Amino acid sequence: MAKEKKLVEAITSMDVDFAQWYTDVVKKAELIDYSSVRGCMILRPNGYAIWENIQKELDKRFKETGVENVYMPMFIPESLLQKEKDHVEGFAPEVAWVTHGGLEPLQERLCVRPTSETLFCDLYSNIVQSYRDLPKLYNQWCSVVRWEKTTRPFLRSMEFLWQEGHTAHATAEEAEARTVQMLNVYADFCENVLAIPMIKGRKTDKEKFAGAHSTYTIEALMHDGKALQSGTSHNFGDGFAHAFNIQYTDKENKLQYVHQTSWGMSTRIIGAIIMVHGDDSGLVLPPRIAPVQVMIIPIAQHKEGVLEKAYELQGKLVSSFRVKVDDSDKSPGWKFSEQEMRGIPVRIEIGPKDMEANQAVVVRRDTREKIVVSLDELETKVQEILDTMQKDMLERARAHRDAHTYEARTYEEFKNTVANKPGFVKAMWCGELDCEMKIKEDTTATSRCMPFEQEKLSDTCVCCGKPAKTMVYWGRAY
Amino acid sequence: MAKEKKLVEAITSMDVDFAQWYTDVVKKAELIDYSSVRGCMILRPNGYAIWENIQKELDKRFKETGVENVYMPMFIPESLLQKEKDHVEGFAPEVAWVTHGGLEPLQERLCVRPTSETLFCDLYSNIVQSYRDLPKLYNQWCSVVRWEKTTRPFLRSMEFLWQEGHTAHATAEEAEARTVQMLNVYADFCENVLAIPMIKGRKTDKEKFAGAHSTYTIEALMHDGKALQSGTSHNFGDGFAHAFNIQYTDKENKLQYVHQTSWGMSTRIIGAIIMVHGDDSGLVLPPRIAPVQVMIIPIAQHKEGVLEKAYELQGKLVSSFRVKVDDSDKSPGWKFSEQEMRGIPVRIEIGPKDMEANQAVVVRRDTREKIVVSLDELETKVQEILDTMQKDMLERARAHRDAHTYEARTYEEFKNTVANKPGFVKAMWCGELDCEMKIKEDTTATSRCMPFEQEKLSDTCVCCGKPAKTMVYWGRAY
Repeated sequence: MAKEKKLVEAITSMDVDFAQWYTDVVKKAELIDYSSVRGCMILRPNGYAIWENIQKELDKRFKETGVENVYMPMFIPESLLQKEKDHVEGFAPEVAWVTHGGLEPLQERLCVRPTSETLFCDLYSNIVQSYRDLPKLYNQWCSVVRWEKTTRPFLRSMEFLWQEGHTAHATAEEAEARTVQMLNVYADFCENVLAIPMIKGRKTDKEKFAGAHSTYTIEALMHDGKALQSGTSHNFGDGFAHAFNIQYTDKENKLQYVHQTSWGMSTRIIGAIIMVHGDDSGLVLPPRIAPVQVMIIPIAQHKEGVLEKAYELQGKLVSSFRVKVDDSDKSPGWKFSEQEMRGIPVRIEIGPKDMEANQAVVVRRDTREKIVVSLDELETKVQEILDTMQKDMLERARAHRDAHTYEARTYEEFKNTVANKPGFVKAMWCGELDCEMKIKEDTTATSRCMPFEQEKLSDTCVCCGKPAKTMVYWGRAY
Repeated sequence: MAKEKKLVEAITSMDVDFAQWYTDVVKKAELIDYSSVRGCMILRPNGYAIWENIQKELDKRFKETGVENVYMPMFIPESLLQKEKDHVEGFAPEVAWVTHGGLEPLQERLCVRPTSETLFCDLYSNIVQSYRDLPKLYNQWCSVVRWEKTTRPFLRSMEFLWQEGHTAHATAEEAEARTVQMLNVYADFCENVLAIPMIKGRKTDKEKFAGAHSTYTIEALMHDGKALQSGTSHNFGDGFAHAFNIQYTDKENKLQYVHQTSWGMSTRIIGAIIMVHGDDSGLVLPPRIAPVQVMIIPIAQHKEGVLEKAYELQGKLVSSFRVKVDDSDKSPGWKFSEQEMRGIPVRIEIGPKDMEANQAVVVRRDTREKIVVSLDELETKVQEILDTMQKDMLERARAHRDAHTYEARTYEEFKNTVANKPGFVKAMWCGELDCEMKIKEDTTATSRCMPFEQEKLSDTCVCCGKPAKTMVYWGRAY
């Protein structure tokens, strides 16, 4: 019993210290472990299995739009990285440099990819000749390295896993359509699978990707009212094509530059799952992404027939759900705590009394509601419960976000809101960098995006009072 | 017509120059492209899709044996790499070193993982405490880097993709059983999915992995009579456990060292697929691994109804096969050449005359046999043809290997065989390093393995004439 209490006590309450709660959850749910390499985390089985499911779902959606997977080298020669001016300025300060191979110094140092635009451009300049070769819709699943000063599991680490899509198109219109299409793929995936509602919009010039014409983003609101950029999609126009000389002959036999995009989502999104859905008992995983959806926990498993019954139920459910039996020699209470800590969507409690009554108790992780279910209906009921839970989780997340989304029409109101009400603040903006900088300096809030769904809150910029061009979502962010 | 001839002419015949044939195939089938980074290749969609299928098949088999996936950092601090003496000696000369992060030099340099034993040991020393924590059966899919002097696509490149399994067990017996189990998983996969028969055996001390007690290997014979080591499984005993202090308390509450294994298969196996099954028209992919199994090629596709019919057939087959329609504006002959170059197992030719006769022509890639099939039976027949092709490919590969496996009882016979008959040579060995070295120096053949299936060819070592301990497969190798 002492041991059982320990597991639960060990988590800091999210209301006491949200950052510590987060750290406790990622460790106690065994998602990650720290490694001997500063800033690099180890993805343990519970954490990696979530990423595998994310990969499976996203990869399927990418391929449905015609995307093909490839694998590019992890190293980029310094001269290649330098070909596009804005891009190298953005990334050179934060890359890891390989200077020796075996026992010899290298003639040219290589950086470990922080992102692979330059390598894809190099490839496209070799394999794109004619309009028949377009579009190229390539993606890779890999890890990238960015030499960060401070790191946090999933949210910011020196090495992280992601996918990076890189496309080349004949026209500017096609590139723009692809940029938006992939942002929509991300947003739909987050809402339908991860139960996280997203604000879709465009980044300001200050916040856009190094080398991009425009960057689109999906932004989510965490439980503590801070924003998390969850996926981005960039339209490069023909800037990289000029830098890398990627040209094709069109149908009139004239040379044209291609138009390019890139788009990425990373293990960072696992941080969003934790911070949107988690509670003081640990992780709460949306059923559609949970590596284990159902944990069957036998009660009094030493009694005759109980374990057998648990396996029998597993056998019944295994074709429809990702289901396991916890047959370890721990007490049921300890197993409940572990199932809750790991965020497994439902547990099924089955003991001698349940067996007599031909029933089981199904417990939802999110609401802790206990539902007595006849064993004859178990499969149908579990499906219903998981579907309801998935829907409820999205609705709760949306309600939380909406309740923490504010409007500001004056600068006083803006500053007060950011200072006292964690969440998004919607406010009008003149479009000038000066105002964006001043807001950040005065409040630490940054522009999250210029949402596709615009509202006209007033005619003037919330900061300088000059005519407003656009409404912006502002917020403190991870 | 000139263009069509060009595609085919561009491949060197394998009998003229096998190495050039290989290079031509990997390029013309668009499996890889060379990159701006010396020795690193780009896996293009046709190549990466083969790897994705290999991953899917292997991953499923791993998980069926209880293995869980994780992800470890790509960097290893120099001090960690140095903890196990044999291991660091084996790998330090061929690793890439990161010496700078961002603009700063690092206090301790990091190597890019050439393999991850040291990182897994570091993790296990933190998370293994009790016998209840064992076994640990972890695997990761990642890329590794080895600073090779000369490189060849798939066979030897500076960076390559692989999986590396790392397990920790309570007893030596369990570790040994796991080592053999995973070798069998590899061998079964290669035979049943890749149609490549394997010799299973143990490596000599000279050829075993740096730090291992014993290394098991599967060895395949390529079309040119050279051997290819295709997968390895290592038993480390408790050597790493001592170096990294990985201990657990057993049921009697006594501290014990764990026993460990590791096992890996890489993109190198794609080289084996090419060199075992390919022919002078290009790649020949076994149906079970082919990313596209069936290519439908419309004949006279400008004629009314032909393209529609092709799509209709695709619709009929798509639930059972990976099937595509080549509806590009190239000529049928050009499309045939491409399908053959890419090794797509069967093509279905459908034109106006076929439509009138309610039939299609199915052409096997391996034998080029043309089979006229009624459209009413298309699905069944295609399945039969693919099954037969898969079986025939394995049988042909086995027959080729057996026809190129020789026995030698005297050293003269041995030297003549290696010099004149490319293939495996079976011969007895005394077990001494001196003889193994002399054989390599005299003939360039190396010991491939001491096969599990031993035969007693004679009583004496083929090299020194002293009493023989074991039969060895020898051969020139990639």
